[in-house]
Amino acid sequence: MRIVNLTEETRKNILKDLLKRSPSNFGSYADTVEKIVNDVRDRGDEALFGYTKQFDKADINAGNVLVTKEEIEYAYTQVDEKLIEVIRKAKENIRTYHEKQRQYSWFDSDPKGIMLGQKVTALESVGVYVPGGKAVYPSSVLMNIMPAKVAGVKNIIMTTPCNSEGEVYATTLVAANEAGATAIYKAGGAQAIAALAYGTESIPKVDKIVGPGNIFVALAKRAVYGHVSIDSIAGPSEILVIADETANPRYVAADLLSQAEHDEMASAILITTSKELAEKVSAQVDEFIKVLSRKEIIRKSIDTYGYILLADNMADAVEAANAIASEHLEIVTANPFDVMTRIKNAGAIFIGEYSSEPLGDYFAGPNHVLPTNGTAKFFSPLSVDDFIKKSSIIYYSREALEEVHEDIESFAKSEQLTAHANSIAVRFE
Amino acid sequence: MRIVNLTEETRKNILKDLLKRSPSNFGSYADTVEKIVNDVRDRGDEALFGYTKQFDKADINAGNVLVTKEEIEYAYTQVDEKLIEVIRKAKENIRTYHEKQRQYSWFDSDPKGIMLGQKVTALESVGVYVPGGKAVYPSSVLMNIMPAKVAGVKNIIMTTPCNSEGEVYATTLVAANEAGATAIYKAGGAQAIAALAYGTESIPKVDKIVGPGNIFVALAKRAVYGHVSIDSIAGPSEILVIADETANPRYVAADLLSQAEHDEMASAILITTSKELAEKVSAQVDEFIKVLSRKEIIRKSIDTYGYILLADNMADAVEAANAIASEHLEIVTANPFDVMTRIKNAGAIFIGEYSSEPLGDYFAGPNHVLPTNGTAKFFSPLSVDDFIKKSSIIYYSREALEEVHEDIESFAKSEQLTAHANSIAVRFE
Repeated sequence: MRIVNLTEETRKNILKDLLKRSPSNFGSYADTVEKIVNDVRDRGDEALFGYTKQFDKADINAGNVLVTKEEIEYAYTQVDEKLIEVIRKAKENIRTYHEKQRQYSWFDSDPKGIMLGQKVTALESVGVYVPGGKAVYPSSVLMNIMPAKVAGVKNIIMTTPCNSEGEVYATTLVAANEAGATAIYKAGGAQAIAALAYGTESIPKVDKIVGPGNIFVALAKRAVYGHVSIDSIAGPSEILVIADETANPRYVAADLLSQAEHDEMASAILITTSKELAEKVSAQVDEFIKVLSRKEIIRKSIDTYGYILLADNMADAVEAANAIASEHLEIVTANPFDVMTRIKNAGAIFIGEYSSEPLGDYFAGPNHVLPTNGTAKFFSPLSVDDFIKKSSIIYYSREALEEVHEDIESFAKSEQLTAHANSIAVRFE
Repeated sequence: MRIVNLTEETRKNILKDLLKRSPSNFGSYADTVEKIVNDVRDRGDEALFGYTKQFDKADINAGNVLVTKEEIEYAYTQVDEKLIEVIRKAKENIRTYHEKQRQYSWFDSDPKGIMLGQKVTALESVGVYVPGGKAVYPSSVLMNIMPAKVAGVKNIIMTTPCNSEGEVYATTLVAANEAGATAIYKAGGAQAIAALAYGTESIPKVDKIVGPGNIFVALAKRAVYGHVSIDSIAGPSEILVIADETANPRYVAADLLSQAEHDEMASAILITTSKELAEKVSAQVDEFIKVLSRKEIIRKSIDTYGYILLADNMADAVEAANAIASEHLEIVTANPFDVMTRIKNAGAIFIGEYSSEPLGDYFAGPNHVLPTNGTAKFFSPLSVDDFIKKSSIIYYSREALEEVHEDIESFAKSEQLTAHANSIAVRFE
């Protein structure tokens, strides 16, 4: 794995490189996706099933698009019991963590007869997209459904592509059932997103769509944004490790590779103040790759988007980490909590040498749906916040309004909005 | 003003009608806007100043694009002192309310050596767009800047179009200065949004863009979404009043008109259980329109998107209000707090007959930037939440990880992610 000195120039070039992976640069598919989205919006089920036939080679119709109770029961017989136990443990950890994110309605009152507040309401319906394709990720099913569940969303509508036989992965169904999906539909790609956004005869319209997916799914979510809400558009996975000479190179190398295996566009970066660590990690990465099952993907992603950056000092390392704003950030230094206080931008921060990234992917409880591609500068992990919304509450008594009515009228008049002014004035004629 | 019986059919038709006002249906401008955005991204200042010349007829360059201290001082001499006082009072109310929205980092620890938490960080830089054009809204300047200020955003970059002489409205400058904008640039339209999203030689890149604007601004925000964050895309204003026989028809009529005057596409709807009130409000609306300064706009919006809906009972009225999910909702009934508990979807809820909508627009403290066009089903008022983001915190000790390492490894292996499993396993060899 290449070792490069961390300078302002290398940082800028790496950033530019990483941003090239952004979905916003996949313009060539946007037209195709828009056509699919509009078609499903206009023709409903007919279009949805047509695309399912075309892309997934499956004969899906109004009679079999909804996963049945029997299909779910059958799925349980196909999944290792020990795995079901692990899924349940993970689910409980996810629930416990997300319950701490709950926000409550509040109000504040003033004896003049004023009450101001903020009312929190759960979204009524959400759509959860679960990809099929290359790999099956029950962990992702849990991570997308549980925060909606904790928020109190009534209808959690999941869609996931089926194979040409109309079957959905058993572990996906088990995880969805454990997490508490209200209904599961066999639909994938841009057509599934359109169905959730606009509703079809079979699939109910939702208020918000979450869940990862390929470029077609990402572009479809972008296309329906505004009509419904969406979570942030996920890019390829990323890990950034900040480490000093106290770090164990085997652990660091293993953690870098854990993200590199996701995708050829995944990025794994180590920033270290120790030249010795840099060299050992580089060698260890090569050793590990030989024995890992997804070695082709890993090799490609490490060679294209993998870097070991040698920093002069920890302050430079932190500055670079904040500029990159990685999805996952591990801090493996003598005083990792101190470094954490200096981090502004990261999706999830893993502290110390036993907090390896997959702990967060599967088990600890915080969400693994995280902002990618530098968006940790302004986006947050998926959370209960994503499944609630707020309304302001305003109550003024006659006395309270009377005291300030002239101020409001003069403000409104200064904006030439006389009907606004009139609405206050009419109460004190 | 027309009176219609509230049936499921009228509700659906009205909803369809209202949704036609959505920016997502203004496809014909999207290409123009994308061209402008890409051009500013690629050519920076040169393109920005070119469009400013073309659209605003102003000669703006690197030397005069930034509003100077002298220009701000001069602006203060142009604004009525009493208005400045009102702006300051409103600002304090806005600050007080938004301070209650602050969220704090938290963590939870387990004596096994586990710490999980959520770290809250303010965004580093935000862009606030302030429209010029038809009207000047200092209240909007306060409402967009104050939550960023309260959140702790360091750089609050405002842009607003200037006239052909290169001048910006004095009240806009005063409000921006009072609220605490870091810098104010003379730039408007899609080109200003692009400048904020990508940065130019003169205008710094920001992490998030907020603020209302015309269709070009809305489409530009949509185009840069993902590269930066944006607030929700604002549509035309809306008011919905739920009233029973206890309501004062003069007040209700005045409040309906206060939103109708914003825009020909604004919508004003009364839902009432009282036929008598319906008729009186209808007549009163016609009376008021005669004497209001923006009567042409009001007439158009009332005739196109204004309705008085007669409901059989309060439950039907509430159901319709939840389906419409209005930006502003006034409840003027015998027991308005009871009705409020039944409301799921609304941007801001005004309770009782002295809480007229303009009180919220200007003065009470809650934000007046609210979800429109039915998006109150999933979006919230602009708030401090919009200017912070969160990072998950995960710390596990060796003992804590050891206890669960086999679970995590088997979960990872079930997803065929062996490098994930290896990253845990390597720590317990």
